[in-house]
Amino acid sequence: MSIITLCTDFGTVDGYAASMKGVILGINPSANIVDITHEIPRQGISFAAFVLNGYYRYFPKGTIHIVVVDPGVGGQRYDMVVKTEDYVFVGPDNGVFSYIFMKQSVLCYKINIEAVVSNTFHGRDVFAPAAAKLSLKWDRAILGRQIKRPVMINIPESVVDINSVTGEIIHIDRFGNLITNISSDMISDKKILTVEVKKIKINNMKKAYEQNKESMPGALINSFGMLEIAVSSDSACDKLGAHIGDKVRVLWR
Amino acid sequence: MSIITLCTDFGTVDGYAASMKGVILGINPSANIVDITHEIPRQGISFAAFVLNGYYRYFPKGTIHIVVVDPGVGGQRYDMVVKTEDYVFVGPDNGVFSYIFMKQSVLCYKINIEAVVSNTFHGRDVFAPAAAKLSLKWDRAILGRQIKRPVMINIPESVVDINSVTGEIIHIDRFGNLITNISSDMISDKKILTVEVKKIKINNMKKAYEQNKESMPGALINSFGMLEIAVSSDSACDKLGAHIGDKVRVLWR
Amino acid sequence: MSIITLCTDFGTVDGYAASMKGVILGINPSANIVDITHEIPRQGISFAAFVLNGYYRYFPKGTIHIVVVDPGVGGQRYDMVVKTEDYVFVGPDNGVFSYIFMKQSVLCYKINIEAVVSNTFHGRDVFAPAAAKLSLKWDRAILGRQIKRPVMINIPESVVDINSVTGEIIHIDRFGNLITNISSDMISDKKILTVEVKKIKINNMKKAYEQNKESMPGALINSFGMLEIAVSSDSACDKLGAHIGDKVRVLWR
Repeated sequence: MSIITLCTDFGTVDGYAASMKGVILGINPSANIVDITHEIPRQGISFAAFVLNGYYRYFPKGTIHIVVVDPGVGGQRYDMVVKTEDYVFVGPDNGVFSYIFMKQSVLCYKINIEAVVSNTFHGRDVFAPAAAKLSLKWDRAILGRQIKRPVMINIPESVVDINSVTGEIIHIDRFGNLITNISSDMISDKKILTVEVKKIKINNMKKAYEQNKESMPGALINSFGMLEIAVSSDSACDKLGAHIGDKVRVLWR
Repeated sequence: MSIITLCTDFGTVDGYAASMKGVILGINPSANIVDITHEIPRQGISFAAFVLNGYYRYFPKGTIHIVVVDPGVGGQRYDMVVKTEDYVFVGPDNGVFSYIFMKQSVLCYKINIEAVVSNTFHGRDVFAPAAAKLSLKWDRAILGRQIKRPVMINIPESVVDINSVTGEIIHIDRFGNLITNISSDMISDKKILTVEVKKIKINNMKKAYEQNKESMPGALINSFGMLEIAVSSDSACDKLGAHIGDKVRVLWR
Repeated sequence: MSIITLCTDFGTVDGYAASMKGVILGINPSANIVDITHEIPRQGISFAAFVLNGYYRYFPKGTIHIVVVDPGVGGQRYDMVVKTEDYVFVGPDNGVFSYIFMKQSVLCYKINIEAVVSNTFHGRDVFAPAAAKLSLKWDRAILGRQIKRPVMINIPESVVDINSVTGEIIHIDRFGNLITNISSDMISDKKILTVEVKKIKINNMKKAYEQNKESMPGALINSFGMLEIAVSSDSACDKLGAHIGDKVRVLWR
């Protein structure tokens, strides 16, 4: 049974994601469609890129990941299939796959769909049928010419100095946890003095959320290996008035 | 594997939709349950009717579509199964299937469920078991007498004049796009002069969302073949202060 | 095909629930993952406990129910598997399974996961793999020592008097219906005089929502066999300004 995951900004209520599921099952009735989310903020390309990077690798090899956040649908951007060693990604060439490109070698192809398609809903008319067909077999006929330079969004990188690293908040999750672009390998062997964010200084690293008993902001390495600012049983985002892009600095001895 | 789709106004958080899934899998463990949405606005019968009309036809023949938006549960309205050539629909006889009736011949039946059922949750006690049983085989025993005149909601129709057509906004989607009841076949061969909505005049038709570079409202034929007013990367609904029911007029030469 | 249900407070948008699905399918590719909800209010342990009690029994015997509402992740609380005659439950030992314990004999075990796990995401690193492995076979190797006294949350009980019962609102659903802890067997053989809530007196019991034609609050026995206050096509919660914990009293002759 082939697994096809769906990540979109369609919501569920208008039936757009539903149509995609119908199209997939019409082509491959035994496809195992897995809802990731349909609640990506409207047209949030970089948001989707970040979220995809968090879940894709947990699926079995061979999984096909569809991502549709597509403000440019019907315009110049390409419909794209991305092939890595372990996975296939299907969606618009607008940067949603940027994190995938950073970490591994990929092959990117334009999608050939011969049927008449709408100009406003390639999720249903291009990405769903392409993914469903590829879940049946790796058919080069639906792949067009290679895309040599797929679109990359700007992914902010943290900057390491002699006794500090400066990064920023790149995602805020449902719990109000502030996820940074400072990875554990940058700081795990250091004797941390302070983590600075929004003029607050956090003086020691925690291991888990619950340890922040005092409802003070704490810093920890999260489940994706990134530095995260959290408040136990509360929203660090609300507490600190934080936003994506706010600077975070870690100092060590 | 039989496909059973679920469209409700239950939300997910109270566990109502969950109970329906449990009941279905208890009767047909190999049913492929597909979530359409559980976020139909509370008791939004006409909303659900419109959304259903957008997705049902994309599913494979034989799919069973459950729709539960049911303010009259436990009252006089019938529990109903609707059979078309290609699909089966299961839900209350309150108008949620109105669009289905308009386009094809249907057979409508009352549902016979012998078990004791609640007066407040026919989704779990009637529609889920009826659909699950019908997914195993088309068993007339669970169908009661025919319903000759199922309930129809009022579906507003557009009015064609010699050089214009006047319709209205019938749905506003998550992106704030304004979907009208003016279909492409009414206007596709015309030389459009203006599209009027909320005292705004739109002077030319677009092909895709992205072409509205100026963040001005644009008109296009959407993926369902209907006239739609959209603003590129913004909400036409917010921008125009539009509501369902607002008039839209298309003039041609 | 094994059924594994998922009930969390993760939302869908951050990809946390998605990672759990990937992990499960990586271990048991034929698992039938059923989304219950990911919208439990953040860290709402008692909310999840109540909702679970509403749906779990509708699933086929052998179903594995995962519940992850886990503010104490990484702290002292245990990772737990609960075995009843018909079902398996997997989640933190923090009270989310309290209703399960009240009604049947259970065996509770600590989970043995040998792999390195994060301190912040046991949903992905402990509960998902444990459930997936147990869906393949009941393997005692992943179960540690028994937990003799699992954590119970305080579940308010109604108090029966000679001609009345006093309970409280224990859940408010999406429709604004007020669900109480007064069960039908406490009152079904009584001649009800009034139901009192928020200084309102309701004078007779309804059978179904629709009967409350006047948009006045009505009382009925709901689909879970509990007394519920509802307003036809409106929110009793908004209308009465009700909250969880508000007292409800039923008087009879």
